Amino acid sequence: MPHFTRQDINDMRHLYKINLINSCSGYKSANLIGTKSYKGISNVAIFSSVTHIGSSPALLGFFLRPTTVIRNTYDNIKETGYFTINHIHEPILEEAHHTSAKYSQDISEFDVTLLQEDYKNNYFAPFVKGAPIQIGMKYIEEYPIKANDTILLIGEIIDLFIDDNLLEDDGFVNLSAAKIASINGLDGYAIPALKKRLEYQRPKI
Amino acid sequence: MPHFTRQDINDMRHLYKINLINSCSGYKSANLIGTKSYKGISNVAIFSSVTHIGSSPALLGFFLRPTTVIRNTYDNIKETGYFTINHIHEPILEEAHHTSAKYSQDISEFDVTLLQEDYKNNYFAPFVKGAPIQIGMKYIEEYPIKANDTILLIGEIIDLFIDDNLLEDDGFVNLSAAKIASINGLDGYAIPALKKRLEYQRPKI
Repeated sequence: MPHFTRQDINDMRHLYKINLINSCSGYKSANLIGTKSYKGISNVAIFSSVTHIGSSPALLGFFLRPTTVIRNTYDNIKETGYFTINHIHEPILEEAHHTSAKYSQDISEFDVTLLQEDYKNNYFAPFVKGAPIQIGMKYIEEYPIKANDTILLIGEIIDLFIDDNLLEDDGFVNLSAAKIASINGLDGYAIPALKKRLEYQRPKI
Repeated sequence: MPHFTRQDINDMRHLYKINLINSCSGYKSANLIGTKSYKGISNVAIFSSVTHIGSSPALLGFFLRPTTVIRNTYDNIKETGYFTINHIHEPILEEAHHTSAKYSQDISEFDVTLLQEDYKNNYFAPFVKGAPIQIGMKYIEEYPIKANDTILLIGEIIDLFIDDNLLEDDGFVNLSAAKIASINGLDGYAIPALKKRLEYQRPKI
């Protein structure tokens, strides 16, 4: 059974380390975050850190590094206050993955991929056309993470669009019915099939 | 295509709302967090919010509510500084899910489930025996989230144990080779199969 200590991890070469540490936390969400600058240049970028923070109010958060390609996303959100979260499903896997390439700030990823902008409900930020779940978000707050200079950005769900046939009677959204992806590490993609829903648990004693 | 506004979400009945909002963020990681109090009472609880924060240093974080059953986890981590993250795979799905039941602080979930404590490398906190990935964590810092009174707790990986046959030559950990679970919403479980790894992307223009 392979075993790595803190020292082993510190001493690893870069690529091995980022593959290992990115895949050891478990499956991740696969989303495209859409934004637009006031100048009118749209941006779409893949994120694997979108996390449920709370349901009342309906809050989602994600982590970003201020010094990489992701800077466009952060700058646009700070400038305009709005962004969209769009789920990546099987038909757009390759195009979505390509948004991880580092384009300069004056190029829209919508122009270099087959992904298409979708404007609705007067949102300033673009949704991704055909995404089975499209979420219009409003910026709420952010936390600079001292331990590694990343940022946790939190938004509230303002508009939620869900493809037909995913929504069940009790509000459950069946992600596998839309072939929504899950990310393993930096570059591994899975299309999970729902196995089962388990009942609400009460103590046995 | 179902569409919900912020107002629709606010007006929903509780169970519908938590099902909807918990499943709309995408697939989540499925982990058991193990802790022990100084008094010697161990605790293990299921979490679906463990997120990769960074690789250098190797940081993982998760969100918790200070006022629920999860309080045991938080109190033990604050008291001792250590916790473990253990992956949930297919054979322990039901037992892992049961740890969501609200037991009082003097009962160990290890005593009411088939999950077994696994002590190694002088860790004060228990690992979960048989989990395909076991991660020994050290508390680093926490951030109270103002928007909804949750807490983001961040730890550093101190010891990482990975089952044979999961680790690939470049550091990638193949989660699906161990039938590791992914969570959809509050109670949906999937066992994803890795579909493909995509190449590192460079700009086309």
